[in-house]
Amino acid sequence: MEPTDAHRATFELGIKFGALYHQFAGTPISSASATDLANAIESAIENQPHCEAVTVAMKTEAIEAAVDPDVGYTEFTGEFADVEIVVGYEGLEATAVMEMDEGYPRMRLVDVEEPA
Amino acid sequence: MEPTDAHRATFELGIKFGALYHQFAGTPISSASATDLANAIESAIENQPHCEAVTVAMKTEAIEAAVDPDVGYTEFTGEFADVEIVVGYEGLEATAVMEMDEGYPRMRLVDVEEPA
Amino acid sequence: MEPTDAHRATFELGIKFGALYHQFAGTPISSASATDLANAIESAIENQPHCEAVTVAMKTEAIEAAVDPDVGYTEFTGEFADVEIVVGYEGLEATAVMEMDEGYPRMRLVDVEEPA
Amino acid sequence: MEPTDAHRATFELGIKFGALYHQFAGTPISSASATDLANAIESAIENQPHCEAVTVAMKTEAIEAAVDPDVGYTEFTGEFADVEIVVGYEGLEATAVMEMDEGYPRMRLVDVEEPA
Repeated sequence: MEPTDAHRATFELGIKFGALYHQFAGTPISSASATDLANAIESAIENQPHCEAVTVAMKTEAIEAAVDPDVGYTEFTGEFADVEIVVGYEGLEATAVMEMDEGYPRMRLVDVEEPA
Repeated sequence: MEPTDAHRATFELGIKFGALYHQFAGTPISSASATDLANAIESAIENQPHCEAVTVAMKTEAIEAAVDPDVGYTEFTGEFADVEIVVGYEGLEATAVMEMDEGYPRMRLVDVEEPA
Repeated sequence: MEPTDAHRATFELGIKFGALYHQFAGTPISSASATDLANAIESAIENQPHCEAVTVAMKTEAIEAAVDPDVGYTEFTGEFADVEIVVGYEGLEATAVMEMDEGYPRMRLVDVEEPA
Repeated sequence: MEPTDAHRATFELGIKFGALYHQFAGTPISSASATDLANAIESAIENQPHCEAVTVAMKTEAIEAAVDPDVGYTEFTGEFADVEIVVGYEGLEATAVMEMDEGYPRMRLVDVEEPA
C-alpha cells in the first residue's frame, strides 16, 4: 500500500538512529571526553530533516569500567549511551529510544502520536 | 498511540538506510573499487535484523567524473549509488530507495505491504 | 631498516589524521553545530596514544555556503576545517596539519623535533 | 627539523591505518560477509595516495564466536582482522601491521626500507 504519514515519520526516525550509531561508533572515548561527544551527536543529528530532539545520556561509569588503564580510552558503542530521538513529520510526532537489552543496544520505537 | 507492526517495519527500514549511509560515506572510492564496495555494503547491511535485501547500484560514470586525476579517487557519498532496501517484519514487507533528487541523496519510503 | 623513534612518531601522527578524517567525515554539520563537532573531535582524538594536542578550526563561512537552505545542513568533510595535531613519542614531538591544497584536503607533516 | 622522506613515508602509512580502522569499525559483520568486507577494505584503502598494498585477513573463527545467535552478526573492530599495509614514497617502502596485543589491536611500524 501507499505509505502513510505515520509510516514516513517512523522511517525518518529510523534513519536518525542508524545515522547516529554508524557515524559515531568507533570514536575514541573516555569519561573525560564523553560530554563533548554527547553534545556533538545531539547537535549533528538534530541537523537532519524532521529531527526535533536528540538526547544522548552517556553512561560514564560503564565507559570508565571499559577503559584499559594502559590504553586510556575505549571506543564508543551502543552500550555506552542511552539515546532518545523525536521526529516531527506532517504534524505527527514519533519517538524511539536506544537502550541495552540483554547485552545488545536495541533501538525501539515507543510512540507515534497522531494529531488530536 | 502504540506503534503498529507497519510502523515498526518502516522504523527498521530507516535504521538500515541511516546505517548504510553513515557507515560507508567517506570511503575512498574509484571506478575500479566500486564493485567491491557495493558488495560489502550489501552483505554488511543484510546482516542487520529483519533485513531481507539490499541492492547497491554504483554510478561508475559519476564516480569517474568526480575523481581528480592527480589524486586518483574520491569519497563515497550518496550521489554515487542508487540503493534499494527491503525489510521484512512480522509478515509485512517495507521497501525504500535512496536516489538523487535535486542534488540531494533522498531516502524515500516507497511501499509497505500488509499481509494478503 | 629498523624504524627509529622519529619514524614511529610520524607513524603515530598519521594514524591520528586518518582516524579523525574517517571517523567524522559524513557527520551532518551546520554553522550552528560546528563548534560542538570541533570540540568532540579534539577531545576524542586526544584520547589516542601519544596524542598531545588536536586543534580543529571550523570554517564557518564555507559551511554556511555549502548548506542547501532547503536541507539545512551539509556533511563534514576536509574542506570545512583546518586541523593541527601534535604527537609526542619518546621525547620527540611531531606536528602535522590538514589544509586545503588545490581543492583537496591535504595532510602534511610539518615538523619532527628531536630532543635538544 | 625538516621531515625526511622516511618520516613522510611513515606518516602516510599511519594515515592509511587510521583511515582503515575508523572508516570500517562498526560495520555489521558475520562469517558469511567477512570476505566481502575484507575485499572492500583492501581496494578502498589502496586508492589512497602512495598506498601500494593492503592485506586484510579476517579471523573468521573469532567473528563466529562473537556473533550472538539471537542477533546474527557483530560489529567489525580490530580484534577481527590482521592487517598489513605497504606504502611507497619517493623510492622508500614502509610497512606496518595491525595485530592483537594483550587484547588491544595494536598498529605497529615494522620496516622502512631506504633505497639500496
